Amino acid sequence: MSNAPKINPDQLWQDLMTMACLGATAQGGCDRLTLTEADSAARNLFRLWCEDAGFTVKVDAMGNMFARREGADPSLPPVLMGSHLDTQSPGGKFDGPLGVLAALEAARAIGRAGIATRRAIEVVNWTNEEGARFAPGLMGSGVFGGALPLETAHAARDRDGNSFGDQLKRIRYLGDEPVGGREIDSYVELHVEQGPELERTGTTIAVVSHSNYLVYITFECLGANGHTQATHFKTQRNALLASAKALVEIERIATELGSRAAVSQLDVWPNNRVNVPHRTTFSVMMVEPARETMLALRERITTALAQIGAESGVTFNIIADATREPVIFPEDMVTLIEDVSKDLGHSVMRLSANTGHDALSMGPVCPTALIFVPSRDGISHSDYEYTSPEHCAAGAEVLMHAVLRRANRT
Amino acid sequence: MSNAPKINPDQLWQDLMTMACLGATAQGGCDRLTLTEADSAARNLFRLWCEDAGFTVKVDAMGNMFARREGADPSLPPVLMGSHLDTQSPGGKFDGPLGVLAALEAARAIGRAGIATRRAIEVVNWTNEEGARFAPGLMGSGVFGGALPLETAHAARDRDGNSFGDQLKRIRYLGDEPVGGREIDSYVELHVEQGPELERTGTTIAVVSHSNYLVYITFECLGANGHTQATHFKTQRNALLASAKALVEIERIATELGSRAAVSQLDVWPNNRVNVPHRTTFSVMMVEPARETMLALRERITTALAQIGAESGVTFNIIADATREPVIFPEDMVTLIEDVSKDLGHSVMRLSANTGHDALSMGPVCPTALIFVPSRDGISHSDYEYTSPEHCAAGAEVLMHAVLRRANRT
Repeated sequence: MSNAPKINPDQLWQDLMTMACLGATAQGGCDRLTLTEADSAARNLFRLWCEDAGFTVKVDAMGNMFARREGADPSLPPVLMGSHLDTQSPGGKFDGPLGVLAALEAARAIGRAGIATRRAIEVVNWTNEEGARFAPGLMGSGVFGGALPLETAHAARDRDGNSFGDQLKRIRYLGDEPVGGREIDSYVELHVEQGPELERTGTTIAVVSHSNYLVYITFECLGANGHTQATHFKTQRNALLASAKALVEIERIATELGSRAAVSQLDVWPNNRVNVPHRTTFSVMMVEPARETMLALRERITTALAQIGAESGVTFNIIADATREPVIFPEDMVTLIEDVSKDLGHSVMRLSANTGHDALSMGPVCPTALIFVPSRDGISHSDYEYTSPEHCAAGAEVLMHAVLRRANRT
Repeated sequence: MSNAPKINPDQLWQDLMTMACLGATAQGGCDRLTLTEADSAARNLFRLWCEDAGFTVKVDAMGNMFARREGADPSLPPVLMGSHLDTQSPGGKFDGPLGVLAALEAARAIGRAGIATRRAIEVVNWTNEEGARFAPGLMGSGVFGGALPLETAHAARDRDGNSFGDQLKRIRYLGDEPVGGREIDSYVELHVEQGPELERTGTTIAVVSHSNYLVYITFECLGANGHTQATHFKTQRNALLASAKALVEIERIATELGSRAAVSQLDVWPNNRVNVPHRTTFSVMMVEPARETMLALRERITTALAQIGAESGVTFNIIADATREPVIFPEDMVTLIEDVSKDLGHSVMRLSANTGHDALSMGPVCPTALIFVPSRDGISHSDYEYTSPEHCAAGAEVLMHAVLRRANRT
């Protein structure tokens, strides 16, 4: 005997606000870097809530957590839904947690409605989506999806020299389960948009059709030490000044090509007032849909830096270079989200993804869908990230019904 | 019965190389920040050498060390000579140590020659000239000269939060002597030029006639957090990008005015790849002889930054602002160095000082002279700092004879 399942918007909002207490910042955001005390507490609480709901929680060797609601036919591959509980430093209350807690509430709602799904449903919390403490991001889902070897992930180190593997053990989330290697029916993820399009167009739901090229290049600039005041700046081989020129030029080139490139990280050595800097490192992040433009952007930035280097007596070297290729989500999964949204009376649009998401790791594994709900002012990775209770609940509804259709299909 | 005193060049060179072992860097320089283990070792060694030579070592409440060779009339104020044993990080073997160890060898040479000077001679090691760990620089001599209160100096903190006072106690160099407040006949300091003029003109000795305006302004740039990839860079309020524009503009303005301004330090928050930076701080160092040009430089930089701020949606605030006024050394002290140099057969020229020196702190206290010897390629605050044994010895000779004339004058 089953009823129509209903998301409880108050419960979802309360869960989000409760989770946001763990690692809360003074400005109303969250600082819950992966494998910290705050992340450990978030995991413990998530496990408790899942077990309270009657789900079985398993943890794999990457710390990925899977809360399973068994299906009528346990031999069929499960449908997964989830996201991540870790945040940037600082980050907000929604980027990550919404996808996990909406999935939890969706699974609970299915339970409250007394529905026995054909396939099992699993709520997932992926480890280290953000990559803020240990690079690269999408680490837990990346190993699950086969893009990253387990050993490489465990060997990653934070700025203090701690290894991912040791820290995972320290917070007691090095689980027994193997990472991936099992059949998954499909994966559906809800996330905040982290951009302004839904808000600008007054749309409630976006379904992601594909992701763009995401290119991360880390440059090192090598100059020469000297006395800041005693060396005339015209003869200084100042790695900081040359890097400043590089940053300005990178913005100019991206503007000219109508593309996106930004630098948000710069380290300077020795970084004191009276030593001319002999070294910097900085990372350029590029987001671009078209392969030709992406290649032109790379080429022109590299050429421009070589010229600045020659003029400034410094050298720019590439010390890390990673390209995330576009993922194209299957048309039937995109249509599924559109259909469910319309059936529920929500406006829906297609968008591309400019950022990394665990759904990109799952694309090669199984049919995958990525759902966005609006972010106020398009802001994320910020204390001021905000998605309204109504939009959170709408996203959870779409997630739930999409997963139900996948789990029950014959 | 006395002979003509002679510097032993081999002894001076050996002392320099021995001292350079303490905090030696892999590249052949020194990393001997004030009040570290390396600085503590350098002080212990200096004390040992002074006591071996028969001098009495006293330490004041700033850790300044005074090794006294008593004069025939102990009631007369002493002549001081010295510099500092601390270095930048990285620094070289000569910036600082040369002035202290040449003074030590000069005092020993006077002793070897059996000369009883009329006034006492004291060899000084000033604490924290560099200001690299605790700001401001010229700290020990600054308190001695009355420019800085003792309490302010003791309360200064390094980046790890350690206070100067605590660290001075920790290395056991919080001495009993009051800081300053006693009459000093005169002060003579030998230092490496840290610039290219002596080398360029083939001159052995420079005497500093005056110092230039030294202006240090620390700016803070405030933007707004956001997601690096999801926020289009045109709408980012990226404090790092705006600061890069500021650095390029500061160089342009200084070039236009024919003056000097350089930035060697920049800190970025939160400084990770996917958060738009919301804050930076950076310090501009200006060196300028003319008051009008210095004021124009300040004015134009401030105006340019306000404009960049308005265009970039960020704010630049001044959070520290210090100007070191020019010091004009007495003509008779300048002439003394010129006369001694010529008598010893060394070529000599006048220069201005573009950097801070303990002699600037002593200018207001007593008649002061500052002597320079050549730096290879004008390089300092670098592992590659180098002054030849011959130039070190020539500087020590000039120092010794200048001090002898001051100490013996009637």
